[in-house]
Order: sequence, then structure tokens, then C-alpha cells
Amino acid sequence: MPTMCDYPQQFEPDSLGSFSDVHNFSGGPGALPQIVLQEAQQAIARAPGTNISVLGVSHRSQWFRDVLDETEDNIRDLLNVPSKYRVLFLQGGGTMQFSMVPMNMLRGAGKCADYLTTGYWSEKAIVEARKEGTVNEAWNGKANGFCDLPAPDECNFTPNAAYLHYVSNETVEGLQFPYLPGLQEIPRVCDMSSDFLSRPIDIGSYSLVYAHAQKNMGPAGVTIVIVEEEVMHRAPENIPSIMDYRLFAQHRSNYNTPPVFAIYTMMLVTRWLKGTVGGLVEMADINRCKAATLYKTIDESDGFYRCRASKRYRSNMNACFDLPTPSLTDKFLTSAERAGFVGLTGHRSIGGVRASLYNGVTLQAVQNLSEFMRWFRSQMDNDDRAGVRNG
Amino acid sequence: MPTMCDYPQQFEPDSLGSFSDVHNFSGGPGALPQIVLQEAQQAIARAPGTNISVLGVSHRSQWFRDVLDETEDNIRDLLNVPSKYRVLFLQGGGTMQFSMVPMNMLRGAGKCADYLTTGYWSEKAIVEARKEGTVNEAWNGKANGFCDLPAPDECNFTPNAAYLHYVSNETVEGLQFPYLPGLQEIPRVCDMSSDFLSRPIDIGSYSLVYAHAQKNMGPAGVTIVIVEEEVMHRAPENIPSIMDYRLFAQHRSNYNTPPVFAIYTMMLVTRWLKGTVGGLVEMADINRCKAATLYKTIDESDGFYRCRASKRYRSNMNACFDLPTPSLTDKFLTSAERAGFVGLTGHRSIGGVRASLYNGVTLQAVQNLSEFMRWFRSQMDNDDRAGVRNG
Repeated sequence: MPTMCDYPQQFEPDSLGSFSDVHNFSGGPGALPQIVLQEAQQAIARAPGTNISVLGVSHRSQWFRDVLDETEDNIRDLLNVPSKYRVLFLQGGGTMQFSMVPMNMLRGAGKCADYLTTGYWSEKAIVEARKEGTVNEAWNGKANGFCDLPAPDECNFTPNAAYLHYVSNETVEGLQFPYLPGLQEIPRVCDMSSDFLSRPIDIGSYSLVYAHAQKNMGPAGVTIVIVEEEVMHRAPENIPSIMDYRLFAQHRSNYNTPPVFAIYTMMLVTRWLKGTVGGLVEMADINRCKAATLYKTIDESDGFYRCRASKRYRSNMNACFDLPTPSLTDKFLTSAERAGFVGLTGHRSIGGVRASLYNGVTLQAVQNLSEFMRWFRSQMDNDDRAGVRNG
Repeated sequence: MPTMCDYPQQFEPDSLGSFSDVHNFSGGPGALPQIVLQEAQQAIARAPGTNISVLGVSHRSQWFRDVLDETEDNIRDLLNVPSKYRVLFLQGGGTMQFSMVPMNMLRGAGKCADYLTTGYWSEKAIVEARKEGTVNEAWNGKANGFCDLPAPDECNFTPNAAYLHYVSNETVEGLQFPYLPGLQEIPRVCDMSSDFLSRPIDIGSYSLVYAHAQKNMGPAGVTIVIVEEEVMHRAPENIPSIMDYRLFAQHRSNYNTPPVFAIYTMMLVTRWLKGTVGGLVEMADINRCKAATLYKTIDESDGFYRCRASKRYRSNMNACFDLPTPSLTDKFLTSAERAGFVGLTGHRSIGGVRASLYNGVTLQAVQNLSEFMRWFRSQMDNDDRAGVRNG
């Protein structure tokens, strides 16, 4: 009788020193394209066009100015960013933006800000906003275990709010907005940390968009902000310099020492998106196909794999699912790792399985994972029939 | 007649793809030890002990927990950090600390903070402190062009100040404190961004010490803070989470996604300091020797090379000097770069030449630079005699 260990090893686990070829489904920092890793690796020896390591290049050098400029240009091209927006590279991740947004746009504004609470990350964002001013929670999905997003007419929006903040993709719960929430006349602020550059968006619908790099764009350590010039200049005076968008705009993202290597790698990713992939329409097609492949496997498993997220709001970035018992989930994760599928453990706040399908994850990787999932289920069925399941 | 171009090329500028071997004297991000670059490069392919790139490792993995723990342990060992201090890894650089320190230690404290203004960086720090509370500038060296530091009895300290803030090494001007300033009973806060881990220090003399990595410790993107537990807990409530030391302490530097690769590289540097170098006493000996070599070349140049910094406060980390004319300075920088000495341009605020002698710069590199400097001067003397100097 076959056992789980029979699943064919796809990779040589002992070929250390060469590039990894296991499939990484980590929720973040996530997988990056192989070609990007190779180029990043070469730059550690010598940054192209220089004689020194990228880790020792001055952030005031023309070389790095060119890196900043190309990264910005690539992002502007990919998203068709209108000229009235500034593209900034900061540090501190989404958590820094949770505070920076209300400090710049709510403090002293004499208005309240609307927040949608749709999962783990938006719950964190609203806490920081309350430190800076009045907040209206326009919707909260906690009572339903964050399995759903609001329908467009379900939210309690404030007509003259300073802005509406929401999270386009809840990484932990695997929920993604398929529509643009909010009122036409209220500035939208969106945390796109886990789906930025995964699909085209209309930047013109937002006043500010932010995303850390470590899902779809690069290594952890750099955060991108796209902000309407006019909104940025309405911020109060005397906020800490490190929290002031205007200074980063004025210095073209070179105010204090930026994370040079993280930005260089992000440049490589945006170059790959424009060149190899062909753009965000093409990237979105691939991402949709990856998600469809995985959800099909789940939906055709007769309930062996179960999504928590309501079907209409399932995320194309993070497929979160459970097995019939926690013990089977553990068995699945162990067996998957042994077979070369890593980073599948669900977020520590809710457990389960999470397959993150960021830009750097290939369709082949998802097809292989789906095949593994079918195989694993068949093994469990065999065990069931043989009465050996020890779940 | 020999011309400047005759200085022997030490390196093959066309051997791209292999590791760089020019000498990098950049003021920051600075040179890192070759072995660290090699290990960092390997980890881009596979993080040791894993099957995936270090850029795609989850920050919640045991692998990264071990990296954080070893980095902290190494720093505790190297500096003999007492247990009542917390060692934290943050983002945002020194600029973030310029705000975080007064937000945590001055806001609502009912006291003033003393600041020493000794150069470019301390001028930036005091501006941020004034946004958070009352500040007493205990000394200001601007009138003397920041060529000097205060003598111990020259400062106007406040007896019951919340803390004294100073910068141990002014990177731009090349000034370094050879003594511990301040009153015994007043908590010291020190920006050690450009000399941290370059020499032993007595952490017990400080309440808080901070330093970004990109001088002596690693790539840009991570900042270390060593803070007395008791001081940290006196901070006001309701400050932005990203600015709250307590949260980073509680989550052992894994509150929001840390810059994984930058911290991994810092671990490699601290491992190298403990192992290959043998500790901070040994590192300080090497650094002193490097500085002595360079300053000797300057002092024996009959005023051809001129330090701005007063002799007693010359920095062992940044040797800043001028040549007789700006045009000769330019010629020197061009010629040096051609000969394989890069990153020597002085800070954009004051110009001139700056040779940064961080941990990653070898004694051999400094000896080679000194030889080049003697050669360059002799060329200029020859040109003078031949009447061809076009400075």
C-alpha cells in the first residue's frame, strides 16, 4: 500500500550552493522570479556598471539615482500613473503607513476618516488612525469571522470624510476586493501591500496607495507610496520628518539613506514585469489562471479542502483553506514540505493552509501543488478505506 | 615626464562578474568584508539550512528567529551588554531615531533634553527633538565651522535634563568624541551610527544607543537600538506603534516584517567580528592603525593635504581633508578613482575628500591609498616645477 512518503521528490534537496528549485508559497516575504534572484546575486559581487558591491554603493551616487529613477519610471509605466501623483520609496512597511496616513491626512483636518475593517491587517490600521483623529468604522466583518467583504451598499460611509481607508487584499484571510468601495467624492486610501502590481488598477481612483515590497515586488525593507501631490501638501506642519511625505517627495526618495539593495531588487522585478511578462494585464491573466487552478482543486475535493473566504471575494493572491481536522492539516503541511512545497503554513492568527500566489510564483508551481493536493487527498481516502487514518 | 595616468592600475576593471577588488572608501553605505559579501551572495540562492532564497524566507520562520537571536547574541557578546538592556532591530535609520528618541523620552516628561550640536547630523537631530518638547542646546560648534568638539567643561548642561543627546562620530566633518560627555546622573543617548562596533564601549554609561547598519555593520535598511528596559517603559502611551520601542521589545524585533536580508547580513558581520577579527578590542586596534596610517600621510604632506578637524578630535572612522585648491581636489578624486580608490568624494554639504575607514575597509586598502596620496602629491610637485599645473 502506498504511503505519503511515496510522493515523488521533485527536487534534489542536497544540491546546496546552486539555486533553489523548491516551490515557495510563503505569505511574505514571498517568492521572487528566478532571473531577479540571479541578477541580485551578481550585484552583490558588482553592481552592474560599477566596480563595487551593490551593498557598498553610495545612495548619493549617480548609479543609485538611476536605479531610483528607473524603478519609478517602470512603476509609472506599468500602472499608467498620472503626473499629479508622486511615487515614493520609504521604509517601515504597512505598519508605518498605518500611522503616516492619518498623521498626514487626518490630524488637524477637522473631519473624520472612514475605515473598513475586513480582516487582520485592517484591524491594525484603524488602531493607529484613532491615535490621530476621529474615525468612523464604516463596516466590520469580525462577527462573521472575516469570511466576507461588504457588498457595495452595505457600508456606513461618511459623506464628508477626510478619506476612506481599506485593504484591497486581506493576506491572512484570503479576501480580495473585486470592486472599488467608497463614495465618488471621498478620497480613497488603499493598503495594497499584498496585491500591488499583481493586476492593473486605476490610480486616478485613489488619493494614496501604499504597499510594502515583500509580496509581489521585492525583498522586505522597502515600501512604495503613490500619493496625489495636492493631498500630500495639505499635511500639518511639524510632524516628524521621517513621517512627512513632502520631504521624501522633495528629495525624490533620497531624503535619508534608503534601503539601496531592496530598491535595486524592486527595479529588477519591475523590469521583469515590463519586459518578460509584458505588463500588468498579462500578469493579471497569469495570476487569475494560477488562482483558478488552485481553487478548482479545492472545489473539486468534495469538501476535503475548504476555503473559509466567501466564494465571491476569494483572493487571487492568497488561497487560504483547511482540511477536515487540524491533525490532517498538520499532516498535509509536513507531507507538502517533504515533497518540495514550502511556506504553506497559514498565518499564526488563524492557522490552516495558505498558498500565496504572488507574481514570483509560477503557474507550473501551482499546477504541481494542485497535483500534490489531489494525490494527498487520494492517499487519505485510501487510508480511510484501510482504516489506518490516525487523524 | 610621468603623468597622473601612470599610476599603476591595481585591478582589472573589466573582470565583471567576479567579485570587486577596488578599494571602497564610501561614507556609507560602506565597504563590507569580502567573506560577508560571499556568504550573502550564496544566501540569495539558498539561505543556509533551507531550500529557498534568503529573500523569500518568512520572517516568522524558525530560521529567521535563529538569525535574529544570533545577531542579538553576537552584539551582546561583542559589547558585553548588561541584561537590563534590550537590543532591538528597527527600520528608518538615524533619522527615525531623531524622532523616536524624543517621542519616547521627552514628550510629556516635564523636563528638557540637552543636545550637543557638533556637526551635520546632530543639527538634524535637534530639529526633531524640538517638535516633541523643550530642548537646551548645551553646545554648538557651528561658529567654528564644526572643526572642533567641546572640551568636557565647555558645555552648558541642565542638571535635571530628561537626557543628553550627542553624536559620537560626526561622519560629515570627521570628528569623534574621545571621551564621554555629560553629567554622571543624566541619561545619555548617543547616535553611534558611524562608529558603532568599531571599538569597545561601556553600554552601562548610556540609556539608549542607536546606529544604522550601513557604516560598520551591514547594508542600508536596518537600525540597531540598545535601550535600558526601564527607560523604554517610561514612554507615553498612544504614540504610533511603529515608533514604540516597547512593541519591538515585546515581539523581539519581529513586530512587523523586519528587513530580513539586511539583518542576515548584519549577523554575518557580527560573526566575522567575533570570529575572524577576534572582538572589538582587536577591531579598534586595526581601526586605530588604519587612521594613524592615513593621518600620518596627511600630516607629512607639508600642508598639501589638510584636515579640517582639530587634531585632538579627529575621527578614526572618517578622515576628511582638502587639497590646496578645489580644482586640485577634483583632480585628486578623478585620479584616485582611475587608480581603483572609490567613494572618496566628501559629503555634498562641505565637499573635499573623505576617506571612510569603516570595519570593512582593510589596512592594506589604507596603505595603498596612502601610497597613492604620496604619489599624487609628488606628481603635482613635478608639475609645479615644470610649470604645467593647470589647477
